[in-house]
Amino acid sequence: MARLDLSAPVEDLAAQLIDIPSVSGGEHAIADAVEQALTSQAPHLTLTRDGDAIVARTETGAAQRVIIAGHLDTVPIKDNVPSRWDDDGATLWGRGSVDMKAGVAVMLSLAAQLDRPMRDVTWVLYDHEEVEESKNGLGRLSRKHPELLEAQFAVLCEPTSAAIEGGCNGTLRADVTIPGVAAHSARAWKGVNAIHRAAPLLAALDAYAPATVTVDGLDYREGLNAVGIRGGIAGNVIPDAAVITLNYRFAPDKTLEQAQAHVVEVIARSGVEHTLAWTDLAAACRPGLDAPLARSFADAVAAHGGGAPRAKVGWTDVARLGALGIPAVNYGPGDPELAHADHEACPVADIRACRAGLEAWLTA
Amino acid sequence: MARLDLSAPVEDLAAQLIDIPSVSGGEHAIADAVEQALTSQAPHLTLTRDGDAIVARTETGAAQRVIIAGHLDTVPIKDNVPSRWDDDGATLWGRGSVDMKAGVAVMLSLAAQLDRPMRDVTWVLYDHEEVEESKNGLGRLSRKHPELLEAQFAVLCEPTSAAIEGGCNGTLRADVTIPGVAAHSARAWKGVNAIHRAAPLLAALDAYAPATVTVDGLDYREGLNAVGIRGGIAGNVIPDAAVITLNYRFAPDKTLEQAQAHVVEVIARSGVEHTLAWTDLAAACRPGLDAPLARSFADAVAAHGGGAPRAKVGWTDVARLGALGIPAVNYGPGDPELAHADHEACPVADIRACRAGLEAWLTA
Repeated sequence: MARLDLSAPVEDLAAQLIDIPSVSGGEHAIADAVEQALTSQAPHLTLTRDGDAIVARTETGAAQRVIIAGHLDTVPIKDNVPSRWDDDGATLWGRGSVDMKAGVAVMLSLAAQLDRPMRDVTWVLYDHEEVEESKNGLGRLSRKHPELLEAQFAVLCEPTSAAIEGGCNGTLRADVTIPGVAAHSARAWKGVNAIHRAAPLLAALDAYAPATVTVDGLDYREGLNAVGIRGGIAGNVIPDAAVITLNYRFAPDKTLEQAQAHVVEVIARSGVEHTLAWTDLAAACRPGLDAPLARSFADAVAAHGGGAPRAKVGWTDVARLGALGIPAVNYGPGDPELAHADHEACPVADIRACRAGLEAWLTA
Repeated sequence: MARLDLSAPVEDLAAQLIDIPSVSGGEHAIADAVEQALTSQAPHLTLTRDGDAIVARTETGAAQRVIIAGHLDTVPIKDNVPSRWDDDGATLWGRGSVDMKAGVAVMLSLAAQLDRPMRDVTWVLYDHEEVEESKNGLGRLSRKHPELLEAQFAVLCEPTSAAIEGGCNGTLRADVTIPGVAAHSARAWKGVNAIHRAAPLLAALDAYAPATVTVDGLDYREGLNAVGIRGGIAGNVIPDAAVITLNYRFAPDKTLEQAQAHVVEVIARSGVEHTLAWTDLAAACRPGLDAPLARSFADAVAAHGGGAPRAKVGWTDVARLGALGIPAVNYGPGDPELAHADHEACPVADIRACRAGLEAWLTA
């Protein structure tokens, strides 16, 4: 089994983690290494293992408890394992360097060091984040061990370039099917062209002015888009259906139901005859940055060069925590735009800044 | 080799032809049978065989020459060979009964009988009509043996329910690609949604009023339609392109170039940014029904219950003859709506009417 040195410099620990391949579904080796390292090097933690997820809790009896979470899996490797350093040692390259083994290294480094944090910490390391929702390890833990995930606030160490990105927008998808009547295109008057009938809805989407909504002090920019369209049977047939796939990214001032109602209203206003099928429904998560616990975190991060919190517009697993009633923020090393890129690489400065920010918050 | 009796009742000859499978690419056996039957039973004809096409000409020295043409191949068989009769013998069922072995039976029956028609006849029986244009046997003959296809008028025995359907509309297809800029749909403002931008063109198509154009006394109804649309990369990506496939069916008052110019103009008026690629270009064919030769044919058909000529809105191989400068009409037994249907079936009355109409024209 690969052995992890949790007392190594945090960037070296990140490299050790990258060097253990852990593509989704293949997290067993890295989970074993993490479990073994925490057992032997962080005896102050109470461990629970569930599949390839590990929950490690301090139990100091502090009045507050926070979750700090990260996933162990990566997208498939593309000649980018093992890790490598650039010439001046300022950047760590490799699969997972951004998404999100540098964040996991920050967590493990602090988990081993902080045996008496000023607020109790539940460290959550989980599997299957990069694949279909039904396999998600954090989701599984929330169903099987909800008591292990009780907390007043959570930090998910997804890449944010070491800034706080609060909560997340929700996302939903729907297939809008516009009916027509098929006919030979040489006798088009015998049919009804479903593609032509889509025009008013596309025009409504083109004219749609997405909102920017302020929630707990952060500005969430929304978007409503056709992300797909298909229609047509053959080159000589009037199409009997056109299907537009809509994606609505909505701010955490809305419940999922309110977001669905908005989409229904936009389509209805366009006047197109249609049927609607929801294909993906993921709630938003409030950042909770108006609570004292969160403010103290923001202050600690700001003191370590993290700048002002901003809204997270992409959907992340913070929403699973939000669904448990736990406000949550994203905070981790690396540029999120590089996640999943073959040239994924993380600045060492980010890794150190995140460690320092979290350490300050948990010990100040 | 299957043997054909060209002196049999014409509907029985149609059944014999159906019973020789001849799916496109597999016409060799039926071409052999036709060649052998014409050689032995119609010695007054001069035969040319090219691949699986046969050209059989009377050479009486008459002042006028007409082409009567039909294809030997069918679409794939679906448990509908051999042929069968309905209980009262009024309908012949089987693959090709409509498209177009009943028409071929009319041709062969008359070719054998009429050794001294009042106008010379070029009987053309050809292969590969039901597949890609490049394989079409009539097209091959027109390239390799243009001298064999000289004539003042032509009849193509495609199914028309024994009515004259003059000429044909042209058809063209074009892919209209509307560009966008890809972006993550959580940050839609960084992209340009190509699907949304398609709205004005679809609205223009929806509002488009197709013309009906009178040519040589027949009314050709046009149509301009989106027959396909596609766009979208993934459920979380702003689409960088939308592609609309247009199909324009245009009357024979227009050249292909004029039809293309019209499509270009309609798209330009919609104002959408786009690139255009022509994917299919097939000229129209004038019916030529204002010429005396054609009028005599229309009179002969009317005298045998065929009714008034009408325009052919679908594209057929008459356009290949039109491209050679030969006005042409469609005239054959069977309901064209049943062509290619698994339950393809042809009324015996249609077969007899077509034989009678053509015989009257060629002998009166």
